[in-house]
Amino acid sequence: MGIEYDGSAFRGWQIQVGVRSVQATLEEAIGRVADHPIRVQCAGRTDAGVHADEQVVHFDTAARRTERAWVLGTNVNLPPDVAVRWACPVDPRFHARFEAQARHYRYLIMVRATRSPLQRDRAVWSHRPLDIERMREAGQALVGVHDFSSFRAVACQAKSPIRHLHYLELSETDGLIQLRVGANGFLHHMVRNIAGVLMTIGRGEASVEWTRELLELRDRRLGGVTAPPQGLYFVRADYPEGFRLPSGRALAPSTDQHNVTRSCL
Amino acid sequence: MGIEYDGSAFRGWQIQVGVRSVQATLEEAIGRVADHPIRVQCAGRTDAGVHADEQVVHFDTAARRTERAWVLGTNVNLPPDVAVRWACPVDPRFHARFEAQARHYRYLIMVRATRSPLQRDRAVWSHRPLDIERMREAGQALVGVHDFSSFRAVACQAKSPIRHLHYLELSETDGLIQLRVGANGFLHHMVRNIAGVLMTIGRGEASVEWTRELLELRDRRLGGVTAPPQGLYFVRADYPEGFRLPSGRALAPSTDQHNVTRSCL
Repeated sequence: MGIEYDGSAFRGWQIQVGVRSVQATLEEAIGRVADHPIRVQCAGRTDAGVHADEQVVHFDTAARRTERAWVLGTNVNLPPDVAVRWACPVDPRFHARFEAQARHYRYLIMVRATRSPLQRDRAVWSHRPLDIERMREAGQALVGVHDFSSFRAVACQAKSPIRHLHYLELSETDGLIQLRVGANGFLHHMVRNIAGVLMTIGRGEASVEWTRELLELRDRRLGGVTAPPQGLYFVRADYPEGFRLPSGRALAPSTDQHNVTRSCL
Repeated sequence: MGIEYDGSAFRGWQIQVGVRSVQATLEEAIGRVADHPIRVQCAGRTDAGVHADEQVVHFDTAARRTERAWVLGTNVNLPPDVAVRWACPVDPRFHARFEAQARHYRYLIMVRATRSPLQRDRAVWSHRPLDIERMREAGQALVGVHDFSSFRAVACQAKSPIRHLHYLELSETDGLIQLRVGANGFLHHMVRNIAGVLMTIGRGEASVEWTRELLELRDRRLGGVTAPPQGLYFVRADYPEGFRLPSGRALAPSTDQHNVTRSCL
């Protein structure tokens, strides 16, 4: 399934006792459609306040339902801040986390003298101007295969700090800066730490060479401030073509009530 | 002052006893900075759930404050869903409502098979595809000076139903359709009624000629469905140049903490 959520009112993806998580909310809703308890696995767990354009999950079920029934049935049982975008049957060997070849994130920064009510849970606010050219130059040092120890959370449990950052792009529209990154995988807080370091460089408070220096230091304690969660979006995950997850995965708008065109399978 | 707000949790602009309004919230916050009760006048009142990128208000005060103090002081006293973007002293003849020469609105439509959690309070959702070319063609019939009786709310109190629609533009990005309109003034529900009619035409449920026919009928009872409020944004208002409200009005991002560059005056 592809899942969109507004992370503002969730304490993150993962199930924790006594708090509202995307995982628990989703499992309960899918379980009602399946008529049995469901456990989902996701492509990339997100922290409290972090959003998803298209998180990918898989689950095992004995229930037989049409793809449309999985999507619409689950959505009826979900609250307004989370929704299923598509559903597909997959090969038993598919695993949303372990089979993902790449993950993509974006991070939004609103540059303005005053805070933005409309963007308050959707972007981080910088009241200082940011030099996007400096940020671009500094960001390029991170692209490639590197030891990202200086960009991982102290609590990060990944065995290896080595990741392949495929790209890092920055664009700006009407004072809203968008950072886009893709990698084979991300360490805990890695995107938010990259965003925090690039914002510091963009404000002119650190040199353009700081990203390269941090990579070489391999020490989180020397790294920059972790940027806040509300600017971060899990965009999508890529899987081997053999699993036949289509590229434009969303359920197509219905051309009439009864004969829906599905782009998935 | 220029004001941005997320209208989701407000029962509209105008003060009403016992409900949360943008006007009352703003007047209380400005009053704390002015140290006396404030009454504001706005360029265009908005309904419950409608947003503003830059509503314009004016008020009379005997208090002497810097522009920066008006902006930052008021913002400290405002809740997260409303903020002041800029403030300027104006000529006593200025009136936010009566001196506005034009108002600009936008309306957002998310076209997708499934609802969007991230856009749920920011755009209306259409699960049916919309033919934007048909909508464009139909919309052009509305541009110019017309009797908009078929597009006004039954309860609309304006003396004349004649308005000059300066432009109507439609664009689309990633399934998000944006309708932009500007006029010397708008009747109650006029933008939402235009959006509702164009969406009906876009779905192919009415002919492209329907907009022209409705103008000629001058009868709201024959008009289309009023589109929901959450897709609507008050964008800005234009005033005569003599009032010297600058075009890029927002307070500029601060280059340092003490010496702010103001684009306003």
